[in-house]
Amino acid sequence: MHSPIIKPYPITRSLIPEIQEHPIHFVSAAITPEACFYLRNHFAYPRITGQSFVLSVGGEVQKPRTFQYEELLRMPSKELTVPLECAGNNRELFRPRVFGEQWGAGAISQGVWRGVALRDLLRLTGLQASAKEVVFEGHDSGRRPDLEGEFVFARSLPLGKAMHPDTLIAYALNGEPIPYKHGYPFRLIVPQWYAMASVKWLRSITVIRNHFSGPFQDIDYMYYPEKDSDTRKTPVTTIQVNSIIQQPLNRSVLDKGMHLIYGLAWTGTGWIKHVEISTDGGENWRPAVVQPASQNAYSWTFWNYTWLADQKGEYTMMSRATDSFGFVQPAAAKWNRKGYGYNAYSVVHVQVE
Amino acid sequence: MHSPIIKPYPITRSLIPEIQEHPIHFVSAAITPEACFYLRNHFAYPRITGQSFVLSVGGEVQKPRTFQYEELLRMPSKELTVPLECAGNNRELFRPRVFGEQWGAGAISQGVWRGVALRDLLRLTGLQASAKEVVFEGHDSGRRPDLEGEFVFARSLPLGKAMHPDTLIAYALNGEPIPYKHGYPFRLIVPQWYAMASVKWLRSITVIRNHFSGPFQDIDYMYYPEKDSDTRKTPVTTIQVNSIIQQPLNRSVLDKGMHLIYGLAWTGTGWIKHVEISTDGGENWRPAVVQPASQNAYSWTFWNYTWLADQKGEYTMMSRATDSFGFVQPAAAKWNRKGYGYNAYSVVHVQVE
Repeated sequence: MHSPIIKPYPITRSLIPEIQEHPIHFVSAAITPEACFYLRNHFAYPRITGQSFVLSVGGEVQKPRTFQYEELLRMPSKELTVPLECAGNNRELFRPRVFGEQWGAGAISQGVWRGVALRDLLRLTGLQASAKEVVFEGHDSGRRPDLEGEFVFARSLPLGKAMHPDTLIAYALNGEPIPYKHGYPFRLIVPQWYAMASVKWLRSITVIRNHFSGPFQDIDYMYYPEKDSDTRKTPVTTIQVNSIIQQPLNRSVLDKGMHLIYGLAWTGTGWIKHVEISTDGGENWRPAVVQPASQNAYSWTFWNYTWLADQKGEYTMMSRATDSFGFVQPAAAKWNRKGYGYNAYSVVHVQVE
Repeated sequence: MHSPIIKPYPITRSLIPEIQEHPIHFVSAAITPEACFYLRNHFAYPRITGQSFVLSVGGEVQKPRTFQYEELLRMPSKELTVPLECAGNNRELFRPRVFGEQWGAGAISQGVWRGVALRDLLRLTGLQASAKEVVFEGHDSGRRPDLEGEFVFARSLPLGKAMHPDTLIAYALNGEPIPYKHGYPFRLIVPQWYAMASVKWLRSITVIRNHFSGPFQDIDYMYYPEKDSDTRKTPVTTIQVNSIIQQPLNRSVLDKGMHLIYGLAWTGTGWIKHVEISTDGGENWRPAVVQPASQNAYSWTFWNYTWLADQKGEYTMMSRATDSFGFVQPAAAKWNRKGYGYNAYSVVHVQVE
């Protein structure tokens, strides 16, 4: 009675399919607790059967074959700390507003994934010279509002990304079998790409000689720069440099004195080099304290900034991350009709009383 | 494994003090489940001790005295289904934006409260002719950003409202002792007023001869119509007529065909007479099907509207409730600096594909 349990909860965006957002303003850990890990499903959960433990590899390969769950577990594996970020993260911030799940800043979570490098599997099957893309199908399927018929969730990778040594067929998250809702027993993990690429409940891998054009490849997860036409559309791939102010919360009221501003930064291109903070709406910028670059090139970076609020008034705080490729967050995100890849400065308005 | 548990969660707005929003778009029941009931605390949770089970009544009364928990349980009681709505519900929708908890539409929940009418207690103590207001103190206390020192959460009611037969000293919610987080063992329940009046962890009732001016009475929970001055401020009291479109969700994508639009309506003045729906941004309005007026004058009203979406495009849906006093939701809420009493039409933009 004297110590009530107080905890943050996922933010429910949809029940069928289940879509839950990570309460990122209230959780700050290198490993996102499973209870808070964001969920973005496209369909109802698939049934797990004996077939779910068999992974088939076919198409433009020398020797098509299947891999059993136990077999994969015995192969050489690697473990990577990877943030998964939904391409629609922060969609609610686009102006003009766009349709789709109205994600806040929490469509991102981080975990330690263990699995077998996809290229190790493809070495066992061999590739044909015609190989161009690799298609990944999940066990989840269902209907779409825009097309007739049933669709499986399927995505492709260009051969180069598929053969990257860190593109994994994962079977464990944080030292345990992958939780059912996160893709048990097999999930593709594609570091540095937005998470639509990391196909859950993986059932088959098919090497193809041309471009895959399923609806989750060529309709969704494309940047459409025009409102009323599909011209100049380009595929959503690499995570763009980004940061978030976790605390203080937007529109909060603070007392006068010292306040710790803190948050995360991450990128799909290299690592975070620095994070700058403005407390005057972008006029002046000062460096945040950034955690030393991790051995693991993929994990997100914690930063903090101590701010002395010695005057009453309204303040606009911003964070801006720069990565080792030289990419910098922009003041305004590039608008696109389906609202992907938002990465403008994180902005928080506070009032000091 | 084949039937994963999928459920909506409260929306975390703050951990200390704990502030959680009801996921109102995903829960539609006359009785809000406890796990989803919204929480709005001003301080850390108070400790419950032996003293918590004693309620003192004093001030401008004939015979000051205390009431024991068991004694209250033996007195004649009544049960009321009451929606509690935070005065800041929907604060995030005010434009220009205001500071404070950025509540969405879920700072409202409904339950069945049982307790003793406050006027029955005051009959036992008697009132002095000088009595003007009644002050209610909770066990919760702490600091505020704007003032020096420690404050108890305390509010007053004018004598007329205090003596209303439905103003209760409640000890049960939905047939059980009031959950700790909702005010165990005693909570004042003031039907028809915004819920800041329904003081939790009630410790004392003091009748006074003048106006109570604690900071939760005269600083917070006041409508300030001006941004830069406190002139013309007025107290927040009665719940204003209101409604919500629970489904579909804002900015969702629907397929062509029939869709059920549904939601809730409620008011602090009388009961809901009708709810109108527009699917063309307010040009045309049609009546929703409204549940028959309940025997209980306070509970919220369910409504629904069947909509045939036979053309692709973007649609703006609105709901507008009218109560038995003739109050109608306005197109725009009355702006006030602290963001109380938002009750404009509920507006949802959808895209039909």
